[in-house]
Amino acid sequence: MNFFAKSILQKAGYGNLHRFMSTKALTKVTFNNGIKTITLASPETRNTLSIPMERELLKHLSTDWENNDLRVIVLDSEGPLFSAGHNLNEMTTKNNLEVHNEIFHLASKVMFAIIDCPVPVVGKVKAGAFAAGCQLVAQCDIAVCTPNCKFATPGANVGIFCSTPGVAIARCVHPMVTRHMLLTGLPLTANEAKDNGLVFKVCKEEDIDKEVDHICQSIMSKSRAIIMNGKRFYYRQVDLPIKEAFKLGEQEMIDTLSLRDTQEGIESFLQKKKPNWCHRPDPLNSK
Amino acid sequence: MNFFAKSILQKAGYGNLHRFMSTKALTKVTFNNGIKTITLASPETRNTLSIPMERELLKHLSTDWENNDLRVIVLDSEGPLFSAGHNLNEMTTKNNLEVHNEIFHLASKVMFAIIDCPVPVVGKVKAGAFAAGCQLVAQCDIAVCTPNCKFATPGANVGIFCSTPGVAIARCVHPMVTRHMLLTGLPLTANEAKDNGLVFKVCKEEDIDKEVDHICQSIMSKSRAIIMNGKRFYYRQVDLPIKEAFKLGEQEMIDTLSLRDTQEGIESFLQKKKPNWCHRPDPLNSK
Amino acid sequence: MNFFAKSILQKAGYGNLHRFMSTKALTKVTFNNGIKTITLASPETRNTLSIPMERELLKHLSTDWENNDLRVIVLDSEGPLFSAGHNLNEMTTKNNLEVHNEIFHLASKVMFAIIDCPVPVVGKVKAGAFAAGCQLVAQCDIAVCTPNCKFATPGANVGIFCSTPGVAIARCVHPMVTRHMLLTGLPLTANEAKDNGLVFKVCKEEDIDKEVDHICQSIMSKSRAIIMNGKRFYYRQVDLPIKEAFKLGEQEMIDTLSLRDTQEGIESFLQKKKPNWCHRPDPLNSK
Repeated sequence: MNFFAKSILQKAGYGNLHRFMSTKALTKVTFNNGIKTITLASPETRNTLSIPMERELLKHLSTDWENNDLRVIVLDSEGPLFSAGHNLNEMTTKNNLEVHNEIFHLASKVMFAIIDCPVPVVGKVKAGAFAAGCQLVAQCDIAVCTPNCKFATPGANVGIFCSTPGVAIARCVHPMVTRHMLLTGLPLTANEAKDNGLVFKVCKEEDIDKEVDHICQSIMSKSRAIIMNGKRFYYRQVDLPIKEAFKLGEQEMIDTLSLRDTQEGIESFLQKKKPNWCHRPDPLNSK
Repeated sequence: MNFFAKSILQKAGYGNLHRFMSTKALTKVTFNNGIKTITLASPETRNTLSIPMERELLKHLSTDWENNDLRVIVLDSEGPLFSAGHNLNEMTTKNNLEVHNEIFHLASKVMFAIIDCPVPVVGKVKAGAFAAGCQLVAQCDIAVCTPNCKFATPGANVGIFCSTPGVAIARCVHPMVTRHMLLTGLPLTANEAKDNGLVFKVCKEEDIDKEVDHICQSIMSKSRAIIMNGKRFYYRQVDLPIKEAFKLGEQEMIDTLSLRDTQEGIESFLQKKKPNWCHRPDPLNSK
Repeated sequence: MNFFAKSILQKAGYGNLHRFMSTKALTKVTFNNGIKTITLASPETRNTLSIPMERELLKHLSTDWENNDLRVIVLDSEGPLFSAGHNLNEMTTKNNLEVHNEIFHLASKVMFAIIDCPVPVVGKVKAGAFAAGCQLVAQCDIAVCTPNCKFATPGANVGIFCSTPGVAIARCVHPMVTRHMLLTGLPLTANEAKDNGLVFKVCKEEDIDKEVDHICQSIMSKSRAIIMNGKRFYYRQVDLPIKEAFKLGEQEMIDTLSLRDTQEGIESFLQKKKPNWCHRPDPLNSK
């Protein structure tokens, strides 16, 4: 960054991080029967991923990792948008560099929390998602949406190319469609989003709760430890050259055979009974 | 792996590798007119990729590489499943670590044989493919299937996350669909498999033989050496950064111009005659 | 390359690079209202990417990078083919190694020019594209085509596996479809090309000008500097492991906030007025 620009931002002073306290909760969280639902609940801000919103989101995504009662996280929203992306007000020169750093540092942390979280993160997308909001959808382990949803990365329209949304989107959407989104800012419909890999499925509005619940129940019928290890290995292998990935996978498969829940699963299948998971990555000889 | 778990497995002793001899062939192999068809032919085991089955598959995939009469390998199946994946019976604590290692070491070798094989491997998938069976389909150079086929990676249901199937699937299927398959274990229909990249085409049952033959004839009309080099280069470049891949490709293209079959192809095209391939990667000045 | 083969090619002598001068222009170029349209205009050669054609293409793709009036490059064609690929006549032993090197060295340079060009390159594909012609389509930032178009990489039919086309295609098309194209040489229809990621959209012939113009206008409504930085970052991040990409993206986003056009965009949005871009990557405190 240019030295003078930095100085200007830093001298601004009054726009420092201490101002960014949330006065009221911007999210709602429920945690029942294994499912933590984090709802972006600030329709009046269009669920903007402001610093306070990112902090809340990060907190809810990052807690309970050691709690075996947590089995799935669902990301939901209230209001006419899933999320409009970052808060442009925070990005002006009224705020100093510390603030600007925080916006995007938190955004990375939210992404990493989704990736590193031991349980799957499922997006229930019932309204449009733009810029960093679209990034949030793309980074979910699985996302489903309703037919009305639109998805776009129009940041360049307001001078901020959607570079970080592009990181998430490029990793699930067809490259030429990704580039069209990023360079033109034009939206995808729900069906286009599905056809090009941004969401897993388009569900009627009256069916999306059932669909998300079906996904959650499918995940929760398995051992938490097995899902945790499997998700972690997926993100480890997916960036590797294929043979390297297979060699690591070979060891991953061998190692899982010494886990209590793996042997419980196999024995239960062979004996045609329901497995009794301990849900922990405990070795075979543990109680 | 936990030390005690290892000890338990190793002390088990009686479940060692010597037990895993196939008493009768689990595959059928035909080799006519350039096409070696390897048929998984153990419907009573649901074409389970047991150690004996993997050994047979590996043998048939790995032989005849120097035989110019071998031009394409087709993977076919008998019975109501293409393959149900690995054999859970082999994965219990009745078998020692040596056995567990062998299951997955062979599986990697089968994958590498498909990748490294000098001729294309074409999957003719006429029945469901699950777990490592689905991995086998995903790793084919080209696979086609019939409309009845289902594809799933339900390993986590029985305590074994489909980590190695995920390596193959993540490299051809949309990421969000891959994660849905791995985390929920829910199946794809044939059309979903096609739309998301797991198979090239869905053919009516009465058409699949013709479709696979069309693919095989298209391959066999070309020089074996050119296909061999091209396939090898594809797997080399596909994991590289784009500019590095283009630079290597540049040299690959230049080098092929000094091959006898490349110049035979060019000259035949320019002279509007049928090329007379030698099918070997011989240099231009060879007889 | 085999030593003797090299000698033969080098001794051929008469087929050296000096022969490859274009006597007349093979392309037409217009440059109006921000859009440079490069038209492959040699229908009699089927828009073959001969050395002279590649040189022209490279020149037109590589100039005006510092000219702020250049906002988008459109690749268009005249005649019944978008491009038939490289010129087989140049690849015979009548030409020496220097010529062979030049064909593919230029091809890489054309690809790199598209990637490195500060403005988006949009393919307007109104006719079939084969081999290196298909590579050119696949490498466009965005390509749209008409319903009549066919796409294929049939190089192996004439002894030259489409290895470099495969580099571009493998980076936008489903892997199993890529391998089918490369190994069989069989074509994709326009709709198959779209469904599998090779083009962004299929437009009726009477609509393609409007569609391409819509894309161009969407790009040109933004700041040139923001698009330039965004495109450059996209190609930088897309080959990286996801977390590394996000960390770089974080800094990219922070850095853009100190640009004049980013702050112009944000302020204009907040004040509900039209942004007045300078189109240069100038820091905030510049005039």
